[in-house]
Amino acid sequence: MKTEPTTLLIIGGVAGGASAAARARRHSESAHIIVLERGPDVSFANCGLPYHIGGDIPDRADLAIQTPDSLRALLNLDVRTLTEAVSIDRENRQVRIRSLGDGAESLLSYDQLILAPGASPLRPPLPGIDSPLVHTLRNLQDMDRIKAAAAAVEKVAIIGAGFIGLEMAEQLHTIGKQVSVIELQPQVLPQLDAEMVRPLETTLREKGIELILGDGIEGFETTATGIDAKLKSGRNLSTGLVILSIGVRPESGLAKDAGLDLGPRGHIQVDSWQRTSDPAIYAVGDACETEDPILGKRTAIPLGGPANRQGRTAADHIFLGEKALRYPGSIGTAIVRVFDQAAGIAGYSETRLKMEGTPYQTVTVNGSSHASYFPGAETITLKLLWSPEDGRVLGAQASGKDGVDKRLDVIATALRGRLTIDDLAHLELAYAPPFGNAKDVINVAGFAAGNMRDGLLVPVPDLKSAGVQIVDVRPAAVAAKRPVPGAKNIPLAELRGRLAELDRSQPVFTICQMGKTSYFAARILANHGFDARSILGGAHHQLRTYREI
Amino acid sequence: MKTEPTTLLIIGGVAGGASAAARARRHSESAHIIVLERGPDVSFANCGLPYHIGGDIPDRADLAIQTPDSLRALLNLDVRTLTEAVSIDRENRQVRIRSLGDGAESLLSYDQLILAPGASPLRPPLPGIDSPLVHTLRNLQDMDRIKAAAAAVEKVAIIGAGFIGLEMAEQLHTIGKQVSVIELQPQVLPQLDAEMVRPLETTLREKGIELILGDGIEGFETTATGIDAKLKSGRNLSTGLVILSIGVRPESGLAKDAGLDLGPRGHIQVDSWQRTSDPAIYAVGDACETEDPILGKRTAIPLGGPANRQGRTAADHIFLGEKALRYPGSIGTAIVRVFDQAAGIAGYSETRLKMEGTPYQTVTVNGSSHASYFPGAETITLKLLWSPEDGRVLGAQASGKDGVDKRLDVIATALRGRLTIDDLAHLELAYAPPFGNAKDVINVAGFAAGNMRDGLLVPVPDLKSAGVQIVDVRPAAVAAKRPVPGAKNIPLAELRGRLAELDRSQPVFTICQMGKTSYFAARILANHGFDARSILGGAHHQLRTYREI
Repeated sequence: MKTEPTTLLIIGGVAGGASAAARARRHSESAHIIVLERGPDVSFANCGLPYHIGGDIPDRADLAIQTPDSLRALLNLDVRTLTEAVSIDRENRQVRIRSLGDGAESLLSYDQLILAPGASPLRPPLPGIDSPLVHTLRNLQDMDRIKAAAAAVEKVAIIGAGFIGLEMAEQLHTIGKQVSVIELQPQVLPQLDAEMVRPLETTLREKGIELILGDGIEGFETTATGIDAKLKSGRNLSTGLVILSIGVRPESGLAKDAGLDLGPRGHIQVDSWQRTSDPAIYAVGDACETEDPILGKRTAIPLGGPANRQGRTAADHIFLGEKALRYPGSIGTAIVRVFDQAAGIAGYSETRLKMEGTPYQTVTVNGSSHASYFPGAETITLKLLWSPEDGRVLGAQASGKDGVDKRLDVIATALRGRLTIDDLAHLELAYAPPFGNAKDVINVAGFAAGNMRDGLLVPVPDLKSAGVQIVDVRPAAVAAKRPVPGAKNIPLAELRGRLAELDRSQPVFTICQMGKTSYFAARILANHGFDARSILGGAHHQLRTYREI
Repeated sequence: MKTEPTTLLIIGGVAGGASAAARARRHSESAHIIVLERGPDVSFANCGLPYHIGGDIPDRADLAIQTPDSLRALLNLDVRTLTEAVSIDRENRQVRIRSLGDGAESLLSYDQLILAPGASPLRPPLPGIDSPLVHTLRNLQDMDRIKAAAAAVEKVAIIGAGFIGLEMAEQLHTIGKQVSVIELQPQVLPQLDAEMVRPLETTLREKGIELILGDGIEGFETTATGIDAKLKSGRNLSTGLVILSIGVRPESGLAKDAGLDLGPRGHIQVDSWQRTSDPAIYAVGDACETEDPILGKRTAIPLGGPANRQGRTAADHIFLGEKALRYPGSIGTAIVRVFDQAAGIAGYSETRLKMEGTPYQTVTVNGSSHASYFPGAETITLKLLWSPEDGRVLGAQASGKDGVDKRLDVIATALRGRLTIDDLAHLELAYAPPFGNAKDVINVAGFAAGNMRDGLLVPVPDLKSAGVQIVDVRPAAVAAKRPVPGAKNIPLAELRGRLAELDRSQPVFTICQMGKTSYFAARILANHGFDARSILGGAHHQLRTYREI
């Protein structure tokens, strides 16, 4: 714990840096708190940038949460914008800084230093990438440039279909642009499992947005009318404007030059109080690596929530010492809106668990955003992953038109509490017809997971894994309207009387609309001696995700 | 664990009983499952009843989730409606039943018996209470009667301002009735703390609904034009129709007559597998008492979610024995919509903690339903209660126009996981501008609670507890528009320069709009040596809840 007065130098004035400065000021009026920011703005709403381009946030001023002046007035901060840090002299606790205006350099002394440099959008060294028509989106100036450039063109290519890529696609479509999205993976939103984002892909295509999946970018060529994006497939995409959103790289050069420990992917290594390998230097936000509390590994989650709370943690440790609350790590909760759809994740995806070699089980269920008998209910699809060892939840993904954020927040809370599938089964969530369900989709996922463990539910993950004997147990009229490929229709109410129609020598795969009745049917069949298996997620999920790739 | 075939007799065919029957059938095709129901309907959406009266659910058939016929067809149940159980012969495992049609009595044998009789609306023995104009709402027939009766009258009196009372008030107002609500407590929704329901009361009054609080009913008198409700205050309320919604009483008469153990308030006592004191008899739903997992006491929560999951638990124990998942108790999560407002609770209220004599701390904060810079954000007020001993969350209440259900679900999950205020501070909730916040109101509540523990936040619960030196730190224009009684305005940005205007010899109470800036101001003052205290919830909460009672 430091005795006052202290000089706290913070490099970076947006999410993590601004949070650290504000929190530090709550601890001490006498501390000299200096915030260096390379750009002209501090503490702006970087997550809101796409929404000003598309007009959802019409007033640009709404994105400036604070200004250098307001931070000076409210927090008595020494804010120096358009100033960058050149090097750190750890021995003498000094930082060499340079004014971007006149290039003048000087030295700043510190008692504690907080690095909050963020992460910069990846710009791989491809031919033509330096064209002024190839944009990335990090700050208000990038936003202004894209907004101005978009006004003058008809076609926009977005490279990368992650969260920001999809937000940009939605917003640019909204202002009438013809949008193509190019993604190296064979799916949008590669943070989620492929089958969970099929509805988003359908929505994007229905809106007229072109999805070019499983294809990469090889280079760009400026033309008389705009710019050509040259794809790995050989395709040449002529467009007026390119937005590159293929990920970010931690801005850890300053830390590296100062000899601080970095992680394998270049992130600044910190402990649970955000201290780097030099105890006088902290790092927060997108540039640093943190603990993954789910599997106990290291992780880096470049999102605003973690950055803000890490900034607070660093400031607490400076002023409270070991009494300060530790940062408990990041689980990676994220959500995106794409027109009337939402999709998101908390914790691990199936793809990542496979990559880690971690044993898991998974189930996918559907539920209603609120009581299905109350107007406005929408279907939510929820995919749950857990450890077969102890039933502990490892992650979940959700998609739908309403209530997706709520279910992700419940899962995020469950992950923090290390809850199990049995805990989910008995969560007592708020229920009144406009708001929830007596058995919420979260409970149902817990029920289904427990049923799998107990052998009551023998799941088939998808239609393609189903064998030849598929029974569609939906009412005849529903089955006729949107048939399941290869299925024989026996409505549930008739099943007990028509068992003789089924071949006992091979498994029976049951399917229905939502994945609930098919489970009921499989239980009937299993209790009559069949090898019965239920196709998860029902026609609602399967017919949207089934596709010959 | 029972060997098949078994005869399972279930008394009551709505939430808990129907869930038990359905779950039992998944376990066994050969079990004889009999469902007795006194009414004509089974498995109907009782939580939806008010919404058909008001027209939100226009089609009555939507409330019939299952019918006796559909249960026979889908679940092969032996459903006997309009049949009541008269007595239980535990020795011989027989139940005497009576047909409500012809009064014929007969005996039914069982291997296991599940009691799911529910709870009946309280009808105290007041003069005139048997008037046909005094209604209660429990089933579809009650609903039909109220709907028909309401059509013919102008004025309706609702006795009891609990969840159902308020839903009925909203719905009857929606169809043009002049509604008066009479409540014995000096507030609506006595399940919540008084100050948290002030916004609901304001909304109800603004809609023209008369709230008669802190007044009780002494009796009724039928008149030429309708019915007079005679209140304890002496007032005589002339109305066309009375709806009594003052609570429910467990229907445990059958269990009592059979000598099963009952709790102090007449609920059937069960263990965590829902077994009564007779191991062949289970009880589920509103009629039984369960564990309170928060304080380890006994509790009874007459709501649909617990009933459904208790029914499932009983069926599991019958077929799986000790492998069955135990019911973990009920925490009491509830929510109500009142026009454009919502309010709800998870866990204990301050009032109940006081009654239990349990030590607690509490804080009230405001936050935004999603990023405040994104259109459509609404303010949520959250009151958090926790144990000073270990920081464990004991309960929370929320109110607002959007996102109340989500925050209650997070708290409900936190209660199940026995999370602490520090866990809430670092919950990593889903954030994108349309859905959440980088620092959600849940995080902010955790921050504030931690600040209280660490002495950074010295809270003042309400304006009335504030002393004479109140400083309103909002911008001058805001403070002038809606002034705080007795406050001197010093905007935060000017505070450091105007310290000399304050009296150091007495405490300074700070207030702002949302309760955040006042905390910042109090930190400045405390760091300058003042005894500074922040008024919780800001003007947003205080000016709505402040009232001379």
